[in-house]
Amino acid sequence: MNYTIDGLQYANWSQKIFQQMRTGGVDAVHVTIAYHENFRETVARVEEWNRLFERYSDLIVHGRTAEDVRLAKESGRTAIIFGFQNPSPIEDDIGLVEIVHTLGARFMQLSYNNQSLLATGCYEAEDPGITRMGKEVIREMNRVGLVVDMSHSAERSTLEAAEISERPIVVTHANPFSWHAALRNKSDDVLKALAASGGMLGFSVYPHHLHAGSACTLESFCEMIARTAEVMGVDHIGLGSDLCQDQPDSVVEWMRVGRWTKQIDYGEGSADSAGFPPMPDWFEDNRHFPNIAAGLQKTGFSETEVHAIMGNNWFRFFSENFGAA
Amino acid sequence: MNYTIDGLQYANWSQKIFQQMRTGGVDAVHVTIAYHENFRETVARVEEWNRLFERYSDLIVHGRTAEDVRLAKESGRTAIIFGFQNPSPIEDDIGLVEIVHTLGARFMQLSYNNQSLLATGCYEAEDPGITRMGKEVIREMNRVGLVVDMSHSAERSTLEAAEISERPIVVTHANPFSWHAALRNKSDDVLKALAASGGMLGFSVYPHHLHAGSACTLESFCEMIARTAEVMGVDHIGLGSDLCQDQPDSVVEWMRVGRWTKQIDYGEGSADSAGFPPMPDWFEDNRHFPNIAAGLQKTGFSETEVHAIMGNNWFRFFSENFGAA
Repeated sequence: MNYTIDGLQYANWSQKIFQQMRTGGVDAVHVTIAYHENFRETVARVEEWNRLFERYSDLIVHGRTAEDVRLAKESGRTAIIFGFQNPSPIEDDIGLVEIVHTLGARFMQLSYNNQSLLATGCYEAEDPGITRMGKEVIREMNRVGLVVDMSHSAERSTLEAAEISERPIVVTHANPFSWHAALRNKSDDVLKALAASGGMLGFSVYPHHLHAGSACTLESFCEMIARTAEVMGVDHIGLGSDLCQDQPDSVVEWMRVGRWTKQIDYGEGSADSAGFPPMPDWFEDNRHFPNIAAGLQKTGFSETEVHAIMGNNWFRFFSENFGAA
Repeated sequence: MNYTIDGLQYANWSQKIFQQMRTGGVDAVHVTIAYHENFRETVARVEEWNRLFERYSDLIVHGRTAEDVRLAKESGRTAIIFGFQNPSPIEDDIGLVEIVHTLGARFMQLSYNNQSLLATGCYEAEDPGITRMGKEVIREMNRVGLVVDMSHSAERSTLEAAEISERPIVVTHANPFSWHAALRNKSDDVLKALAASGGMLGFSVYPHHLHAGSACTLESFCEMIARTAEVMGVDHIGLGSDLCQDQPDSVVEWMRVGRWTKQIDYGEGSADSAGFPPMPDWFEDNRHFPNIAAGLQKTGFSETEVHAIMGNNWFRFFSENFGAA
């Protein structure tokens, strides 16, 4: 069986989007349910998803395991896997790691742009690595099967997380820095550390992570994937589109500013371009996954490799990393 | 008017202790109301204090300003000033800075032993200084009159806080590292930076901060104060006893471990000596403040200087720093 799996989305969820997932043949999506939400607020997000699962039970189902993804595919639905872009849902409480896993969380970023209690974010001036609490929390995440995601973390923290973690770590959504020099993209050292850990990189289609931004071509994107396969091995790469469909610009402000400043912080954007940038025309929404598959094939990947990148690698990763060690 | 003011206590509060404050002639005490408490838990601590203010209105009164301390003294009571040993009460929300000030908080430590969202604690391996959020929060604390306290912070974070803050910063409870080489004690660089900012050091009587620990003599303690006056100037020093009277050992475990680890962390203690160490015999509780005054006089301080150190310096500091700039 071949899967199509997206390693990250944060859309303004609706029946339309769930139907587009079905049209695009998407079997599972890791969705962000918390950016800066604390524990109680995160529980409210889970409640909202429970309502969506109830209402659109013909289109989506909560995914807790790889087996859930297989069952979703068999029943013609998309499995929704929960993740956090920030450790804010566990607040300062290591005991919440097991609780959020029980509630369905399967990925947690150790930091989001800024310093967290656990690790440093990619926009801080300096990165002293994983904190005292961070070391304890990684151990606990390893124990319960909550995957360490370093997408928005800084370099040294990421390399240390790979060393400290006894299970694979991932970057669910980013691209190589060598292709597009954004602070959010990753050095070859980080890419190699992810692969060496047994982990994954999900390629982002978010324009700020793309060479030439919204004008990036499918050819350039797929060529970049081919180069990354040479660095990491074709078994350690997948998609992580970072699709933020139908979100108002107020949402990107929440992502960037949270509650940590009274100023405006433009993050990857700028005062001139403060909102969400337009997606490339070859990936506007979930219906366009086949475009990427076709692009990968054209770039020279074998059919097996295309399937691996489109979802089979994530499926294998889920089957090995979503439960107790 | 001369004041006796203690820059930090965290006792297991009771009528007995409030009566001992009166016996010792203590006009004001900065009390810790949060170690690792989040905002809601901190509000519960304020509620508990409100009950104590109601019940023991003949002995204590909530102190929000220097004027409240003066009124407390005139009415034969002790003013209780709220503070936090950790920024946990503001969680990740800069808007809570003004809220906690409105609720009465007047001191907030930017970190407690570990890395926080704002600054690094003294037990982390490395200290990258004040974070992005930390810079924003210091500005907001300056605006409303919430004093930056770096007692449990690491060296570089402390020096950077002194630079960034436009108002004086303090270390409410610690001693010079040169006298007793504990991680919690402060270098001469830090002492000078506190004084240069217009801030204060409160001398701690907590045995782990004392030369010879619980066996430290009053003479040694007062000699140390005399040496520190030479470094900082006699206007920038006061007391911050760190008295944790009548607390069970479970409380020191909460201070050290909070919710950040499933292990035991002994902090300043050790497996052999995990609990609260016994206080020196010349400072067992609030009745013993006159012992320190006598010791200072014997060391050669003038009467004016003794009064400055015993409380007049803190009173002046309160009058300048507890409100909007």
